[in-house]
Amino acid sequence: MIIVLKPSTTPEQLSSFTEKLRNDYDVTINRWDGVHSTVLGLIGDTTRVDIEYIEAQDIVENVKRVQEPYKKANRKFHPENTEIKITDSVTIGDGSLHIMAGPCSVESEEQIVGIAESVRKSGATLLRGGAFKPRTSPYAFQGLRSEGLDLLKTARKQTGLPIVTEIMRVSHIDMFENVDIIQVGARNMQNFELLKELGRTDKPILLKRGLSATIEEWLMSAEYIMANGNDKVMLCERGIRTYETFTRNTLDVSAIPVIKKLSHLPVIVDPSHAAGKSWLVEPLAMAAVAAGADGLIIEVHNDPPHALSDGAQSLTPEQFDEVAAKLFSLKRALI
Amino acid sequence: MIIVLKPSTTPEQLSSFTEKLRNDYDVTINRWDGVHSTVLGLIGDTTRVDIEYIEAQDIVENVKRVQEPYKKANRKFHPENTEIKITDSVTIGDGSLHIMAGPCSVESEEQIVGIAESVRKSGATLLRGGAFKPRTSPYAFQGLRSEGLDLLKTARKQTGLPIVTEIMRVSHIDMFENVDIIQVGARNMQNFELLKELGRTDKPILLKRGLSATIEEWLMSAEYIMANGNDKVMLCERGIRTYETFTRNTLDVSAIPVIKKLSHLPVIVDPSHAAGKSWLVEPLAMAAVAAGADGLIIEVHNDPPHALSDGAQSLTPEQFDEVAAKLFSLKRALI
Amino acid sequence: MIIVLKPSTTPEQLSSFTEKLRNDYDVTINRWDGVHSTVLGLIGDTTRVDIEYIEAQDIVENVKRVQEPYKKANRKFHPENTEIKITDSVTIGDGSLHIMAGPCSVESEEQIVGIAESVRKSGATLLRGGAFKPRTSPYAFQGLRSEGLDLLKTARKQTGLPIVTEIMRVSHIDMFENVDIIQVGARNMQNFELLKELGRTDKPILLKRGLSATIEEWLMSAEYIMANGNDKVMLCERGIRTYETFTRNTLDVSAIPVIKKLSHLPVIVDPSHAAGKSWLVEPLAMAAVAAGADGLIIEVHNDPPHALSDGAQSLTPEQFDEVAAKLFSLKRALI
Amino acid sequence: MIIVLKPSTTPEQLSSFTEKLRNDYDVTINRWDGVHSTVLGLIGDTTRVDIEYIEAQDIVENVKRVQEPYKKANRKFHPENTEIKITDSVTIGDGSLHIMAGPCSVESEEQIVGIAESVRKSGATLLRGGAFKPRTSPYAFQGLRSEGLDLLKTARKQTGLPIVTEIMRVSHIDMFENVDIIQVGARNMQNFELLKELGRTDKPILLKRGLSATIEEWLMSAEYIMANGNDKVMLCERGIRTYETFTRNTLDVSAIPVIKKLSHLPVIVDPSHAAGKSWLVEPLAMAAVAAGADGLIIEVHNDPPHALSDGAQSLTPEQFDEVAAKLFSLKRALI
Repeated sequence: MIIVLKPSTTPEQLSSFTEKLRNDYDVTINRWDGVHSTVLGLIGDTTRVDIEYIEAQDIVENVKRVQEPYKKANRKFHPENTEIKITDSVTIGDGSLHIMAGPCSVESEEQIVGIAESVRKSGATLLRGGAFKPRTSPYAFQGLRSEGLDLLKTARKQTGLPIVTEIMRVSHIDMFENVDIIQVGARNMQNFELLKELGRTDKPILLKRGLSATIEEWLMSAEYIMANGNDKVMLCERGIRTYETFTRNTLDVSAIPVIKKLSHLPVIVDPSHAAGKSWLVEPLAMAAVAAGADGLIIEVHNDPPHALSDGAQSLTPEQFDEVAAKLFSLKRALI
Repeated sequence: MIIVLKPSTTPEQLSSFTEKLRNDYDVTINRWDGVHSTVLGLIGDTTRVDIEYIEAQDIVENVKRVQEPYKKANRKFHPENTEIKITDSVTIGDGSLHIMAGPCSVESEEQIVGIAESVRKSGATLLRGGAFKPRTSPYAFQGLRSEGLDLLKTARKQTGLPIVTEIMRVSHIDMFENVDIIQVGARNMQNFELLKELGRTDKPILLKRGLSATIEEWLMSAEYIMANGNDKVMLCERGIRTYETFTRNTLDVSAIPVIKKLSHLPVIVDPSHAAGKSWLVEPLAMAAVAAGADGLIIEVHNDPPHALSDGAQSLTPEQFDEVAAKLFSLKRALI
Repeated sequence: MIIVLKPSTTPEQLSSFTEKLRNDYDVTINRWDGVHSTVLGLIGDTTRVDIEYIEAQDIVENVKRVQEPYKKANRKFHPENTEIKITDSVTIGDGSLHIMAGPCSVESEEQIVGIAESVRKSGATLLRGGAFKPRTSPYAFQGLRSEGLDLLKTARKQTGLPIVTEIMRVSHIDMFENVDIIQVGARNMQNFELLKELGRTDKPILLKRGLSATIEEWLMSAEYIMANGNDKVMLCERGIRTYETFTRNTLDVSAIPVIKKLSHLPVIVDPSHAAGKSWLVEPLAMAAVAAGADGLIIEVHNDPPHALSDGAQSLTPEQFDEVAAKLFSLKRALI
Repeated sequence: MIIVLKPSTTPEQLSSFTEKLRNDYDVTINRWDGVHSTVLGLIGDTTRVDIEYIEAQDIVENVKRVQEPYKKANRKFHPENTEIKITDSVTIGDGSLHIMAGPCSVESEEQIVGIAESVRKSGATLLRGGAFKPRTSPYAFQGLRSEGLDLLKTARKQTGLPIVTEIMRVSHIDMFENVDIIQVGARNMQNFELLKELGRTDKPILLKRGLSATIEEWLMSAEYIMANGNDKVMLCERGIRTYETFTRNTLDVSAIPVIKKLSHLPVIVDPSHAAGKSWLVEPLAMAAVAAGADGLIIEVHNDPPHALSDGAQSLTPEQFDEVAAKLFSLKRALI
């Protein structure tokens, strides 16, 4: 951490400030005196140094971090890729490509079991489906709730596919005990109370990137879960909010190699929510695999025009079958 | 709502689609046939029409809303300004200017009572202070929690100032029973489960705008609270996330007159979080008042360099006294 | 084009407005009367209708385009892909993958000829290099200017590679006569005077997307060139400006399939400027090819640490050789 | 400038790098050795240090500027406000409030003279009007061009108001000789060739902020003009591009105090283009004055519904008269 002091700093202020830093944190301090400013360099574990506290000092002109503020999610301290075992045959982050497929919302037993069987045949290894739905409008369909969870379990029983579904409040954690992967949605990426509580479980977590979260903030949210004891975090890029309105969100494909460089956690990509249009799912999914994603989460609905949510971006099972074949073929070509 | 159909739509598809729309929603449908496309116009209460469902239809090229998707928050259906009475002497939205002032975090009785007395003398009519703090890093100070709430109540007792403080999870609602205004932070603006539960209370709610929420999404979050029965919602503009990095956020001053036009709810502005720098608080607060804000929420700390959070943007009580004087003088000049 | 009128519109205003529309433009007008508003639908060629003129009418609540505002660049009116022949062996947009490679700035004969020979061996089919450099700072190296153009021609002579280089002002057009592809940089995407004049030449144009240009604005800039007579336009995605700061820009990989859907023009991707970091070039280039790009433009420098501009994002010839091999292998796997 | 080196740096690399820095630039270098990294501090005039060159070094982890990259526009080296005298009675930056008013496009003598007389009576001290219009569509009205300039001069003769109008290409500079203030539009803010040539004139320049330009880039564009010899630069905030679509752009009101802190140049605000809606002009203009702007540029049209461009955001002369009265009254209250 590098701290640039104002030219007006007095020797007394300087010495009281550096003394405080040494006492509060386990750091050593270097110092240079330039023409216009004095610069301090903090050496040691600066993860715990509160940058806002430093910025607030009257004598401080500006502060820059050199070290990343996350530790458990940081590849520097954990060079090996994290692999998350979901079932005997599904391990995410082990170099293979996993596709989580299914409808935006669970609607009925027939629907979810039918889709599950179909996507399994096409090569999907996990079933996604929403039971609790975060909707912008209070008047829109909010999901089948606990009934939806039960239907997902029925579909799992019939197909053997592990299930991924979204949680929306702390008090539901017990209800999600028998879910294979708990998803934290983009709008809850900084619901810190939820992250903390999920950190106290041992469930694999699929942490979606917030609509306008920086990569660093996203890793800090992973750190919240990990700091509370749960290391099984997967990061899911689902498009970010930009000025472009043709696509619902802008898929940040760079996030894949960047996360791979900064962290050891697996990266999943959601081309369905990024695009908001079903014809964009294939090219975005192809791009994600080519850029190194560990997995994809894709919306599939047997009858998109009658889907109760997000139909515009859902593939039919037939379309999914074709897309999945191309994705696995691309993955084989890359190895 | 206007729906443009694809040129390939068959007469059968068209009639089955329009029939379904008429059955599902209480709307009448007009239709034109252009050279390249057919256009449908839905007339009636389209608030409940699920735009995603429409977009998902194979035959639909695109859909445009004419009517806003929010109803209870809409000025069209509630032309008078909403006034929210907090105490006998404090009513927000009645044309007077209210300043909520206080520290980012409550730190000690001495601190919070001292600041409360000081800001009251300078003209603040409400005391703000964080007991539960949403922090990006799990390693940063997270607030004094329930002890912080107790200290706020002590300060209220001593000064008579009603208190405003942030809630972070549903299970805390009971604990906030004796708070005057409950704040929902920017990161929880779309924590829909929290919004619903707050809608079931009768507490005044200060709803901060999400980091990258559109004005429409923000009003939809207000609608969540109102649709569940609680009409006492104030909207708080606190800066949005843009590409500009000099300021922490970009204060969207246009949001003030826009909200005033679209909605009847009061608008509060938070220049401290928008700017992230104490020297920007005064000019941004002045701009907010000149643009028509009903109130301001300003961070004041007796000792910003030693604040446990957000010190860089806090004013000292002396600075606040000066700024408040200018703000009230500006307000008087505008009437 | 759909025009929603205000409830207050009088019959006289309505008839005078519709009469004017019919006179000014070759359109027919349909009309519905809803409960709260009257809606007009304009049918015909609305490309020339000035949307700002419509919005300015007192009686107009809002206006929505149904038809795209570009015509010559629109795939609807030109369903076949545009193929642009550069030399006998290089045609862009014909389904093959072309890589334009070379240094950010031309620095010396030895440098540019050496890099040209090297990238040609690795499979590049065009040579890129800047002679005139748009630099944020007036104190930074501004390019070798006309001498740089001469050196590019020398390199072309030695290697047979056609050359791509950036133009910065109208008065240089004559100087660029013997260049194979003229590049318009991101900062000049809406330098309309330059676009018009380039439209009067018959040179292939590589039109980079502006830093915050929407896809529609970008296509409108292509339309400027085409409306003036020059159909040889290639669109180059080079990253857009977002709030994320880890990457220099955010590569909008969705733009590739979107442009392919909306337009018939070829799409080139610049992973070097998008990323700003050389280690990101490979994954982003792979993603671009997988998403359907017709070509790539990649910075290669024999000695990146001593490059006079953009060294941080340049590959060495050895790195480029490896990346190019992977890209061509991926392209073959996709066919 | 602070340079963090990679842990793998060898002593030879380090000494050859620091030697090169000392030779190329007039700087002294300090160095610390941390546990994980070595840090270099460059002291001296780093304005001319090419940050891209430094970033490109293999041994460099990252670089941070401490000193701003602009010099002539920097308040540190020019503490006094710049005042730009336009006529005997109009000096911009001297503490008074100046309003530049007039139509988006000059359309006829009657129109421009009529508007000029009217806005002068309301207190405007300069006349704005577009002769050359940058339009997104090649099919939209492009301005009366040189005839428009002549009409502006006629209006100046009749009213005494100095004129402000936009230039779009270098070859027009001679034609603008008799204009009082030359405007550079947002889309040309980084048309560096134009900036350089304007730097060789002695005309006052109104430099609009680019659609997605950072404050630093904007100041660097001012620096381009100033580095070529012309110090008469005014900066015009006109809204930036964000994800919010309700307003055409988002007025960055913080830019006013930030520019005042970083630079000595006057700041003008354009509420008309920022908002895109005439009813937003008044509150945004009020906010701008309250935040410290030196002037405003406001669109006024005698007949907005028939304006050939930007009618939706234009005020009528009557509306302008009312708004101007409020603005001058606010300005008086602030002193």
